[in-house]
Amino acid sequence: MINQQRLWQSLMDMGEIGGTEKGGVCRLALTDLDKQARDLFVQWCKDAGCTIRIDKMGNIFAHRAGLDDSLPPVVMGSHLDTQPTGGKFDGIYGVLAGLEVIRTLNDKGMETRAPIEASVWTNEEGSRFPPAMVASGVFAGVFELDYGLSRADLDGKTMGQELERIGYNGPDDVGGRPFKAFFEAHIEQGPILEDEKKQIGVVTDAQGQRWYEITLTGQESHAGPTPMSRRRDALVGAARLIDQVNKIGLAHQPNACATVGLLQVFPNSRNVIPGQVFFTVDFRHPDADVLAKMDQALRETADSVTTELGLEMAFEQIWYSPPVPFDTDCVALVRQAATDFGYSHRDIVSGAGHDACYISRVAPTAMVFVPCENGISHNEAENATPEDLAAGCNVLFQAVVERANS
Amino acid sequence: MINQQRLWQSLMDMGEIGGTEKGGVCRLALTDLDKQARDLFVQWCKDAGCTIRIDKMGNIFAHRAGLDDSLPPVVMGSHLDTQPTGGKFDGIYGVLAGLEVIRTLNDKGMETRAPIEASVWTNEEGSRFPPAMVASGVFAGVFELDYGLSRADLDGKTMGQELERIGYNGPDDVGGRPFKAFFEAHIEQGPILEDEKKQIGVVTDAQGQRWYEITLTGQESHAGPTPMSRRRDALVGAARLIDQVNKIGLAHQPNACATVGLLQVFPNSRNVIPGQVFFTVDFRHPDADVLAKMDQALRETADSVTTELGLEMAFEQIWYSPPVPFDTDCVALVRQAATDFGYSHRDIVSGAGHDACYISRVAPTAMVFVPCENGISHNEAENATPEDLAAGCNVLFQAVVERANS
Ligand SMILES: NC(=O)NCCC(=O)O
Ligand SMILES: NC(=O)NCCC(=O)O
Repeated sequence: MINQQRLWQSLMDMGEIGGTEKGGVCRLALTDLDKQARDLFVQWCKDAGCTIRIDKMGNIFAHRAGLDDSLPPVVMGSHLDTQPTGGKFDGIYGVLAGLEVIRTLNDKGMETRAPIEASVWTNEEGSRFPPAMVASGVFAGVFELDYGLSRADLDGKTMGQELERIGYNGPDDVGGRPFKAFFEAHIEQGPILEDEKKQIGVVTDAQGQRWYEITLTGQESHAGPTPMSRRRDALVGAARLIDQVNKIGLAHQPNACATVGLLQVFPNSRNVIPGQVFFTVDFRHPDADVLAKMDQALRETADSVTTELGLEMAFEQIWYSPPVPFDTDCVALVRQAATDFGYSHRDIVSGAGHDACYISRVAPTAMVFVPCENGISHNEAENATPEDLAAGCNVLFQAVVERANS
Repeated sequence: MINQQRLWQSLMDMGEIGGTEKGGVCRLALTDLDKQARDLFVQWCKDAGCTIRIDKMGNIFAHRAGLDDSLPPVVMGSHLDTQPTGGKFDGIYGVLAGLEVIRTLNDKGMETRAPIEASVWTNEEGSRFPPAMVASGVFAGVFELDYGLSRADLDGKTMGQELERIGYNGPDDVGGRPFKAFFEAHIEQGPILEDEKKQIGVVTDAQGQRWYEITLTGQESHAGPTPMSRRRDALVGAARLIDQVNKIGLAHQPNACATVGLLQVFPNSRNVIPGQVFFTVDFRHPDADVLAKMDQALRETADSVTTELGLEMAFEQIWYSPPVPFDTDCVALVRQAATDFGYSHRDIVSGAGHDACYISRVAPTAMVFVPCENGISHNEAENATPEDLAAGCNVLFQAVVERANS
């Protein structure tokens, strides 16, 4: 129904902006490359007859008028930013699937009762500016606007400064307007659909997350003449905690995930005992109680490791995103569409956070997953088939149109 | 005998070049700041009547003529480069103590039979360009000139390029000329002299070192939807090895040191399982056999950790500097001078590598240590007293003059 070839080509064209040698994409939030990607999306939407609005967090909404344009819109969308070694599909698929729905409506000369919008949410990845999903979070009232604009990267540049620099600090207030529904299409980013040979994941829930920042401080000193007994080596402390984070993940199977993804050593010189180490922890679980137990275990092990090694510690949980149940009506629309098209499908819990998680607080929300190769994401090798992507887009199309006409 | 106040003032003046807020110095090898420090030293030496020669590795020699200027010189010296968070004394003291000896000879109108030189050795720290002591190593014939010039920093800039850029790629051949002796004064960089309240360390030996570079490669993937059982997390592997490196150090007490000082994570994003980690290992021991056992233990644990976690490993010992016995005659001159001045002293083994270690292969060599505060070095808090520094310089003066006149 939707145009598989056009959707694929748009993904490939967008993937050239920040495209890497290995076939992935490096397009961090609010960089010059992010601006180029936004500009291209805006141009495509204008070409499709949409009007564009941009809010103060840089979120973009491309509006296709409804028969009754005073009704709240049914909104689709996701994000255009990527990880440093990201792929062509994570987020981008959800944005361009939204555009493809609009293009298909245009092709067919179809009108909908409520208006339809394709959206782009700023800095979903949280890689450059932690936490993740910060702009959809502001939209949903989870974060204050000031909090959103003041998130800073490791060089101290804030989202507010960078939005202004690339010209995407729009005039609109962030949030405060109703959506008739929100639908986000996305690659699964995990192995379940592929393993079970299902083409569509009907996303019922998203697991909860806790993100931490930990700084261990010891004393830098010479690696040669400083006896082992006199050392306060911050990296030895970090190493033990990284191993413990991994063990906490393993101890809460099935389903728990535990990751240290970012770590910085100071002064980071071969013959200097590290005086300070900064690192992050990412905990996930579908059950908030288990997540709380993991939190408890981390605090205990962090205290005991640092005490044992004589290190100082700054420990902060910088983000908690509780488990999210999606809207049963919207989820049913997705399930029904997959059934109607005859696609193999199963209900699934999202392992990743998505803008849909926050939008679900202010609008009836659901998600559509499609498989990705080997379950790999946040990797330049991320891949998905044109057929699966088209199937997900068809499901999105039907769910959105039904909702808009209801 | 030497001018304590002038020596201290020269150290303070030099410490302003790259001086940090915390009172330390950040003056990495062959940066603009290193050039400034070199220029100042050269100017001071010219003011003291010396002639300057610079070799192809950027080593600087300030020559004070002897009564028989055809004799090989007695050379003093150390280095002007520092760690990223280094101090005012490590290396710089040995350079400026050499200059102070020459200034004192001038004050007293003293001549020596053999000429005397104060020297600066390029990139002793090995922090920007590994390994350490690379330019004195080329001088001593341990490394080829090409090897020295092609050492690269983490951005890929080579020593050859950077020497040319700052104008210290001199015309002289590196090495191949005899020294009557080489003496290096240095802060101890460890706690022994301070703990035992000795003012002078008579350095008899330097311990051996092995430096390694290890790259672990797993697979980067999303920290949320990637089950623990499917992960190949390079940072978990690195963490276990860092802990093992520490344990290998502890297992070979007394005297063994084991440090991971530098570590880089790729892609270094909070919600990405690390796909690759690069880190270094620094092993030290006065006994080459024990060092070989530590090496063996590291290889075994590295193999088992990487196999267990399904990681690939690139493992390289990039540097071996064997334990160094200094020249007994030159060491005796240092011990005698300390005794003659009535300074409390003890024989000591150097925990750090020094340019003297390599020069000892081509010239009779000895070192003079003075205490440093809390044994701390490679730290902005590095400190030493004017009195102890003057005592070390007096010992240097006597040893050098006796040797030059012998
Ligand atoms: N979908 C996705 O990769 N989101 C990034 C936020 C997260 O780490 O879950
Ligand atoms: N003295 C000194 O800090 N040398 C650096 C080389 C080493 O790490 O031993």
